[in-house]
Amino acid sequence: MAQKLRQRLYIIIFGTDTPAGKAFDVGLLIAILLSIIAVMLESVPSLQQRYGAIFSITELILTVAFTLEYITRIYVTERKRKYIFSFYGIIDLLSLLPTYLSLFFTGTQYLLVIRALRLLRVFRILKLGRFVGEGEQLGRALRASRHKITVFLGSVVTMVMIMGTVMYLVEGGENGFTSIPRSVYWAIVTLTTVGYGDIAPQTILGQTIASLVMIMGYAIIAVPTGIVTVELGKDRKKQEKRTCSECGNSGHSSDALYCKYCGAQL
Amino acid sequence: MAQKLRQRLYIIIFGTDTPAGKAFDVGLLIAILLSIIAVMLESVPSLQQRYGAIFSITELILTVAFTLEYITRIYVTERKRKYIFSFYGIIDLLSLLPTYLSLFFTGTQYLLVIRALRLLRVFRILKLGRFVGEGEQLGRALRASRHKITVFLGSVVTMVMIMGTVMYLVEGGENGFTSIPRSVYWAIVTLTTVGYGDIAPQTILGQTIASLVMIMGYAIIAVPTGIVTVELGKDRKKQEKRTCSECGNSGHSSDALYCKYCGAQL
Amino acid sequence: MAQKLRQRLYIIIFGTDTPAGKAFDVGLLIAILLSIIAVMLESVPSLQQRYGAIFSITELILTVAFTLEYITRIYVTERKRKYIFSFYGIIDLLSLLPTYLSLFFTGTQYLLVIRALRLLRVFRILKLGRFVGEGEQLGRALRASRHKITVFLGSVVTMVMIMGTVMYLVEGGENGFTSIPRSVYWAIVTLTTVGYGDIAPQTILGQTIASLVMIMGYAIIAVPTGIVTVELGKDRKKQEKRTCSECGNSGHSSDALYCKYCGAQL
Amino acid sequence: MAQKLRQRLYIIIFGTDTPAGKAFDVGLLIAILLSIIAVMLESVPSLQQRYGAIFSITELILTVAFTLEYITRIYVTERKRKYIFSFYGIIDLLSLLPTYLSLFFTGTQYLLVIRALRLLRVFRILKLGRFVGEGEQLGRALRASRHKITVFLGSVVTMVMIMGTVMYLVEGGENGFTSIPRSVYWAIVTLTTVGYGDIAPQTILGQTIASLVMIMGYAIIAVPTGIVTVELGKDRKKQEKRTCSECGNSGHSSDALYCKYCGAQL
Repeated sequence: MAQKLRQRLYIIIFGTDTPAGKAFDVGLLIAILLSIIAVMLESVPSLQQRYGAIFSITELILTVAFTLEYITRIYVTERKRKYIFSFYGIIDLLSLLPTYLSLFFTGTQYLLVIRALRLLRVFRILKLGRFVGEGEQLGRALRASRHKITVFLGSVVTMVMIMGTVMYLVEGGENGFTSIPRSVYWAIVTLTTVGYGDIAPQTILGQTIASLVMIMGYAIIAVPTGIVTVELGKDRKKQEKRTCSECGNSGHSSDALYCKYCGAQL
Repeated sequence: MAQKLRQRLYIIIFGTDTPAGKAFDVGLLIAILLSIIAVMLESVPSLQQRYGAIFSITELILTVAFTLEYITRIYVTERKRKYIFSFYGIIDLLSLLPTYLSLFFTGTQYLLVIRALRLLRVFRILKLGRFVGEGEQLGRALRASRHKITVFLGSVVTMVMIMGTVMYLVEGGENGFTSIPRSVYWAIVTLTTVGYGDIAPQTILGQTIASLVMIMGYAIIAVPTGIVTVELGKDRKKQEKRTCSECGNSGHSSDALYCKYCGAQL
Repeated sequence: MAQKLRQRLYIIIFGTDTPAGKAFDVGLLIAILLSIIAVMLESVPSLQQRYGAIFSITELILTVAFTLEYITRIYVTERKRKYIFSFYGIIDLLSLLPTYLSLFFTGTQYLLVIRALRLLRVFRILKLGRFVGEGEQLGRALRASRHKITVFLGSVVTMVMIMGTVMYLVEGGENGFTSIPRSVYWAIVTLTTVGYGDIAPQTILGQTIASLVMIMGYAIIAVPTGIVTVELGKDRKKQEKRTCSECGNSGHSSDALYCKYCGAQL
Repeated sequence: MAQKLRQRLYIIIFGTDTPAGKAFDVGLLIAILLSIIAVMLESVPSLQQRYGAIFSITELILTVAFTLEYITRIYVTERKRKYIFSFYGIIDLLSLLPTYLSLFFTGTQYLLVIRALRLLRVFRILKLGRFVGEGEQLGRALRASRHKITVFLGSVVTMVMIMGTVMYLVEGGENGFTSIPRSVYWAIVTLTTVGYGDIAPQTILGQTIASLVMIMGYAIIAVPTGIVTVELGKDRKKQEKRTCSECGNSGHSSDALYCKYCGAQL
């Protein structure tokens, strides 16, 4: 009897194929979103003064609910240890702690934004196979180009450190370049074309060097883009080439072991 | 007789192939542009004071003309309901309402900028087949990559929320990060490399985190670019491969049913 | 005799293959650069006060020299009319006028920067065939994608006008959005991720809309990049496929009529 | 005996395959990082006051250590001249000089950031073949597109000079465009979408021109991206096509002479 209840709960909580399972997941997402919005709005002073109590109560209720959910998850799954130490298991636990900690320490309730990570569950609901596949494809492209990206980032960091020091020497403290770390920060702001304008070169030599950094940044952005594009294109081609010998369908992701149309081994 | 007039009007108003039809559409576009410019200039206080009356009259005359045009369109078309609820039909109606509403409520005349959407008709005139095809190709590439873009935007939103909260805790209200929503706004401004500079980190730790966000934003922009490029390239290849079995010409868009050179079924 | 001198001058002035022709072109470029730098530095008040006379004299001497060069060019070429109305002929003339005009009107000397266009001659010297070919390839890719770019720019302009008006209504004059044209300017500054920060949204609703515009701008930049990349890639493939039937070499640009290795017709 | 020691030292200092060689390189990198961080932090006034002595001593000790390392390197290598004039040899020497110079001249210690270039040694440690290959691939792609990039940069520079002068004439000194060089600086800041906001157009005509520059900059960024992407894709294809005739493995870089799997000549 308890065994049956556990199994049914398991299907509702962990599954996403039954109507009940889907409804549970949608409800969970809404609750997560609500709690994140409450935390965010609570930080706005004017709202905090007026609706502070409502926010606190919402948070408390939701955290109790999430705690119950967490306990139930552990209860109904058979591979308890595996769940607890899985990615989602750790996130589920971490998203509970801040509220309890905030009873003892002030300020910790903001860590509740970790709950945002739970939103990643949304991909589970939408798992029409597509989203997971797309995410995997993006991830594979990024992983395949990680060496090139490391070389690229290494060069950028070296360049930024040298340009920052040069600007510190050229402009000096009176123009806002008060220290090398601050000048390096300026170099990053400029190279990435963010350009806050809180620090900006004033001397003609400084502006000339800054112009060089900007044009470099403008040209350099082509590199990561080129890398990711080529990898994505390559991945797609591989996928198109993999054909099932049983049913003849192609388009299998490059690490699939079985045909997604007929189940035959690839 | 009335039937004939209706048909002739239909060809002029809806058609773009006859000289009269073309002239009508060009005139319509000029009128639309005029009315938009009038609305925009009216919002400049100094111009409003001097030429306010001219703007109001221009607007009124043009709106009456557009109303007549709208009624005629309904009159001459045979599939009235289809036109009224079509994309252009709804835009045509919506672009009329603001002027009439502004007789009763103030401020509503600015909604006239909806008229800008009517400018999309320009693509109908230029419809040498090419423009529509190009727009479709762009649209198809965006649609084909919508799942990847969703995954991408989802990750960006999660990242921005977490970084915003972290910066709120690190920098605090005295440096402009007065609330979490405001800090999230800062994170978006930084990650997209817009960088207004209205809020900028002041502490060394804050600037270090900001540097990370910038470099991430710099690298992340590669992802949507890669996605769209690959889709566009794929679409083009498909198009090049589709060959008409009758005349042997290739280059048909992937959802064409008939050969655009000889009309044979593909 | 005069005929011979003319021919020799023609080879020196228009040609770039003989040592004298090369030396002439390099000297010309240096003179052009000098004159541009003089104009630019003259606009700096502190330099103008001290070295004003030097700048004026440099300018005058160089302009006289350029005038002589222009007259000689007309004299030595046989197809005078063709040169005068060619791209370089018009630029050569236009770059002379400002100095003479500045004798009668003040301020016109700044138009001398048109001389910068003469720098494009640099590509003629470097014409190891490569540069011209590369420029052509870029130009072809841009021309091939001009329809897609028109559709893209049209959509951006429509979007920017609508977002600008919305922000004008949301933020209003007290936050810097004093008129619709100014708000449209803000929308362009934001969508292109330039982000001056001279106008920035202050209300929460305004910041939310601005965030949307930024993320859109971030995603939209992928479109022109994708278009140009695909066209460049396509152009390269075509070039690789064109093979000379005589000598078997490939890599001819898509509008070449003769093999660049053996001169045979393609 | 001395010969043996020299050989063993050579393997430790120049080699990266033995555990001792790896440990030496990792230790070296940590020392380099330490010295760079010391230089950077020293430039922060508040830290300089409190920990100035510690920074100076750290710097001195590390420089002595690096000097010893440099001498040992020369001692153990057999091709002394080749090392001294190699890229790393020159960097190694240059990174020593600033500290010694700073004993006689003030300010020179900041040149120590040249040491950052020594960090490039990191790629030697990680030389699982991959990183070097990736760096080479990036370099090849950039080299192959250097002509296109020159044409592109030349056009950007010409455009920026003309737009800068136009804005100088339109906006004038009272709006911050005090000279042509400063206006050109503004044009670069805008075209590269950095957008500090230290100089921003105030007049309506100026803002209209600025909008054009921004949209151009937004479209132009597509060009270098397209160039690099196409070159990277081409390089990858070449690599995939090169197959060893002995072992049948493919994926050799386009300038490899021997198969990296079986050593056979390609």
